[in-house]
Amino acid sequence: MNETYWLWYPGDFELYHAMKQNFSRVERGCQWPAFWKSAPFRNRVAFRRSYSLAQETAFTVHGVTGARGYVQVNDEKHPLGALITCPAGETRISVHIACIGCVPAIYVEGELICSDEGWLADDFDGDPLPAAHNRYFTDPARDPSDWAYSEKRYEPVSVENVNGGTLFTFETELTAALELTWQGEPPLVYLGESRAEALDTQNCYYHCRPDPETGRCPRQALRYAYVPGLAPEDCSAAAVHQYIDIPVKAGFRSDDGELNRIFEVAAHTFMLCSGAFFLDGVKRDKWIWGGDAYQSMLVNRYLTADREIEKRTLLALRGAEPTTTHVNTILDYSLLWILSVEVYFDSYGDRGFVDFLWPKMESLMALILSQREEHGFIVGRKRDWVFIDWADFDRDGPLCAEQMLLAEAYRAMARLAPAGQGELYEREREALLQQIEDHYWDAEKAAYIDSFSSGKRHVTRHANIFAILFDIADGERKKLLAQSVLFNDAIPAITTPYFRFFELEALCRLGYLDEVLREIKAYWGGMLKLGAVTFWEEFDPAKPLGQQYEMYGDPFGKSLCHAWAASPIYLLARYFVGLQGTEPGGTRYELRPQTGAFHSLHCSFPMGEKQLQIDWEQGQLRVLEK
Amino acid sequence: MNETYWLWYPGDFELYHAMKQNFSRVERGCQWPAFWKSAPFRNRVAFRRSYSLAQETAFTVHGVTGARGYVQVNDEKHPLGALITCPAGETRISVHIACIGCVPAIYVEGELICSDEGWLADDFDGDPLPAAHNRYFTDPARDPSDWAYSEKRYEPVSVENVNGGTLFTFETELTAALELTWQGEPPLVYLGESRAEALDTQNCYYHCRPDPETGRCPRQALRYAYVPGLAPEDCSAAAVHQYIDIPVKAGFRSDDGELNRIFEVAAHTFMLCSGAFFLDGVKRDKWIWGGDAYQSMLVNRYLTADREIEKRTLLALRGAEPTTTHVNTILDYSLLWILSVEVYFDSYGDRGFVDFLWPKMESLMALILSQREEHGFIVGRKRDWVFIDWADFDRDGPLCAEQMLLAEAYRAMARLAPAGQGELYEREREALLQQIEDHYWDAEKAAYIDSFSSGKRHVTRHANIFAILFDIADGERKKLLAQSVLFNDAIPAITTPYFRFFELEALCRLGYLDEVLREIKAYWGGMLKLGAVTFWEEFDPAKPLGQQYEMYGDPFGKSLCHAWAASPIYLLARYFVGLQGTEPGGTRYELRPQTGAFHSLHCSFPMGEKQLQIDWEQGQLRVLEK
Repeated sequence: MNETYWLWYPGDFELYHAMKQNFSRVERGCQWPAFWKSAPFRNRVAFRRSYSLAQETAFTVHGVTGARGYVQVNDEKHPLGALITCPAGETRISVHIACIGCVPAIYVEGELICSDEGWLADDFDGDPLPAAHNRYFTDPARDPSDWAYSEKRYEPVSVENVNGGTLFTFETELTAALELTWQGEPPLVYLGESRAEALDTQNCYYHCRPDPETGRCPRQALRYAYVPGLAPEDCSAAAVHQYIDIPVKAGFRSDDGELNRIFEVAAHTFMLCSGAFFLDGVKRDKWIWGGDAYQSMLVNRYLTADREIEKRTLLALRGAEPTTTHVNTILDYSLLWILSVEVYFDSYGDRGFVDFLWPKMESLMALILSQREEHGFIVGRKRDWVFIDWADFDRDGPLCAEQMLLAEAYRAMARLAPAGQGELYEREREALLQQIEDHYWDAEKAAYIDSFSSGKRHVTRHANIFAILFDIADGERKKLLAQSVLFNDAIPAITTPYFRFFELEALCRLGYLDEVLREIKAYWGGMLKLGAVTFWEEFDPAKPLGQQYEMYGDPFGKSLCHAWAASPIYLLARYFVGLQGTEPGGTRYELRPQTGAFHSLHCSFPMGEKQLQIDWEQGQLRVLEK
Repeated sequence: MNETYWLWYPGDFELYHAMKQNFSRVERGCQWPAFWKSAPFRNRVAFRRSYSLAQETAFTVHGVTGARGYVQVNDEKHPLGALITCPAGETRISVHIACIGCVPAIYVEGELICSDEGWLADDFDGDPLPAAHNRYFTDPARDPSDWAYSEKRYEPVSVENVNGGTLFTFETELTAALELTWQGEPPLVYLGESRAEALDTQNCYYHCRPDPETGRCPRQALRYAYVPGLAPEDCSAAAVHQYIDIPVKAGFRSDDGELNRIFEVAAHTFMLCSGAFFLDGVKRDKWIWGGDAYQSMLVNRYLTADREIEKRTLLALRGAEPTTTHVNTILDYSLLWILSVEVYFDSYGDRGFVDFLWPKMESLMALILSQREEHGFIVGRKRDWVFIDWADFDRDGPLCAEQMLLAEAYRAMARLAPAGQGELYEREREALLQQIEDHYWDAEKAAYIDSFSSGKRHVTRHANIFAILFDIADGERKKLLAQSVLFNDAIPAITTPYFRFFELEALCRLGYLDEVLREIKAYWGGMLKLGAVTFWEEFDPAKPLGQQYEMYGDPFGKSLCHAWAASPIYLLARYFVGLQGTEPGGTRYELRPQTGAFHSLHCSFPMGEKQLQIDWEQGQLRVLEK
């Protein structure tokens, strides 16, 4: 008997769980589902398979919670859940299944006939496709309507009486179900990422009451739990950390203890934000954002090399046809989604999945291209969000940085296209680059300007960073841009860690590694100095701890565990350890450690399917490939 | 306080309940969801409204079962279910709601702020639309996740001991929850449309066990209920008929008692099949079929004139974008759906709903037109079903009857198009009619042939009936077709009541009313003679009762309560009472009673918004319009 899985129509598990995920945010008692068009899963599918049975065999088909359907064996119908006996011979099986509230999924339990590889899924529309499954759903008793989390129990590291209530402190931030023991009515519990948040019962982002049966609160980000009105002798608590098991495959140990700790805390931050999908943060938003996911994929390549979470995230973000809105409503996130597919391809060399995505890539590009104005520049429609970053752009007419992303998306489309279908995108790219040059390049300012139509010639860093990263500027001009923009204090600084990632990478590309290392230690090291156990959505090194929690006008609005803050993993691995795949899937790679930056270095990193152990000690470099 | 409703995004209530309906069939313990692509509803919407409040007021927003969301009042968020107080002044309210398992719907309860007319629904894609509601969902405690049925209790008219079990007989067929009283374990219960079916525990289509708490079986078609192993002294039963209240507005009483009874039984049949949607039958399939619905709409115009069930059915059948498959997978049902919109428009003159449907009409036509071959004829794709009827067509190349439907759909599109958008369809129709004439008209046979490509020149009735109904043949040729096809016994007879409807109407159009009346009395009267209390899916007057139940190779496969068998209502009303709207919505109408056919006639019929009382007695015709 092969490994048996729950099966579903490819992509639909992701669309169903993406909804669950994007609808899961709660803020001060208000459920806050994400504010973009939700993509539906199929509610009626069939699974088909033919067998040539050498002997009689029996099997049972289980449907997911709430499913309705039947099993047809040759010309006979059987109910779900029945033990079905098949005589030897040619046997055609189809399982018909419908489910409104959950992804229609089946589990076929049997000696010879079981839900292993080889089933086709049919949605009564296109050609049947190989049914999909994943490694987490192999137990007939745990169906894909809910994730079956792994659990790890944490006892509090401190229990204090604060103002007559009890404050439980855990060693680090978790996504946990707090398990409380108490007498009487279920008390209100305040869960905080910071001590200050948990104790501020007015402004704490999340509160709840434990379930009277199980004593558990819903799974939620927490490091601190405060129970007002119950003294430590009247209650006790543990945090049951609930997570999806994705093994970390990377380690980084240098002679610089601060850097080591930065890598470690970045990894913990990243893994907390990596579950069913790449999330932005674990307290907030708990949503799947395309820009954040793009950066997470770059990090993940070096941390877990788990391609499954990347596939789930790509599918969740892409949604369903018809394609009438952008990823998270954001035009640039649609373009970054295209680029994310290329990141995936480079990490794993998985041509099959790219081919599966190709029609979805094409229809998304068709929407994007439908928004071009006369020069071939894209502009937002009435309900689109042209984001790029929280920054003071000159938004008159098409925005330059958006066109840079478009040029890069053209390149990625040309590269990933099935044979013979890429030329169109190459030609579009050439034409667009010329238009960018003609309209946005300001020779006098030695910079790309935001807008060609306003006449203001306003320069921000963003388009210029993209020009470096996407090779839109040539080598000479890149050097020029470093001086005229990146190291020019007159150009407003990047304020978000999201775009800071792009800027630091641009600096790395231009060889400013010392500057980047200083910045990593100042910014991320600065958070550590304030006691951070996870990295934050944003950090202002100039402010004391007490002023760090506010964001978006909310005293505890800032997420203290945010995926995009894990970028040192990528920067250290790629530019300091100097490890980079040179063929898709890392079948060939390059290793150029910045040995000058470290006295010693002991690292392990995944490279596609391989695992590398890299040791630099006393002028000797050893690489072990597993 | 205005009438307060549950609100949802327009069309989505119908898509959700269409799934529930189409997934509800059960056959001998096997759940049998319909075998076509299911159309999803939106899972995330917002409802918006602005008020200028003259005074402080309070309101509460309820979400449908399983919904997550919040209420935003100006810049403040509130949970669902909370009592929210608003001060006087300008107030912007948005209700954000997400639901995976059910149509996201809200109910706003309050004195000044409530969910009456005037809310907009936003799906984060197109422009917001007026939120939808219906008259059945006005109670905050009964949300639109389930229909709240009206109930009527029927006691059995006979209770018999049959082979040691108990057979309960009810006065007529019902869609009822059987309510059983017994001792011990819940027994198996067999529900039949016929006595023979209920007693045949091997082959009975439906069996179940009552719920141990309520004693109720699921709602199911039944006239007979058999409980094996429990004698009449050990159990008792009632049937709780569960229905959606749609008032019947028609009556027909002539001096011909058989005709009166035919009308009455047809009306009972039709109403049983008319619930959330027009269904084909109540035991089987309980699915929403486009061809059946088209005929139901013609009947319904004269029976209830309830436009709401028609709107629900049109929306349920049409599904959602992208339009990649046909209505019920059937190419001709897509065309009949277009024609159904015209039937609706003629019945109610409701331009607003047609405008709402127009983009859906256009995208369905775009799919249809994408399937044209070089002559402009449509052909089925790999997974399409080109049905027309169960008949022995020459299916080589494009089928003639399908092209006739296309020509008629072009005409309907041209007529229903917004100003200036119809000409395209007119031109297409002209070109198609010429092609039909050139390729399918066989002057020698004086008939349209099925196929022009096979060379067989095979004639069936179907295309020729459509040529008469859709005025594709001119007056002279229609007369010719009556002789060469309709009254030509060498052309195989129509076997289905579905297409018999079209044939009888064609005969009516040509003035063969005596022949039609004879046929109505022979066919429908024939069923009555066998004791029918509802009209059947099919009837062979030559067979005894015991041989009437078999169909599709299943001993009780035939539905004994089938909507398409209600066509005498339409034929009698339109051609014998002679009542027909001449303006959309029946604002003008024509009445030409076939007074020669009756000595007396006392009828009432709806005509759009009006109600007509028509009396013909002793040579005097009186018409009362209410």
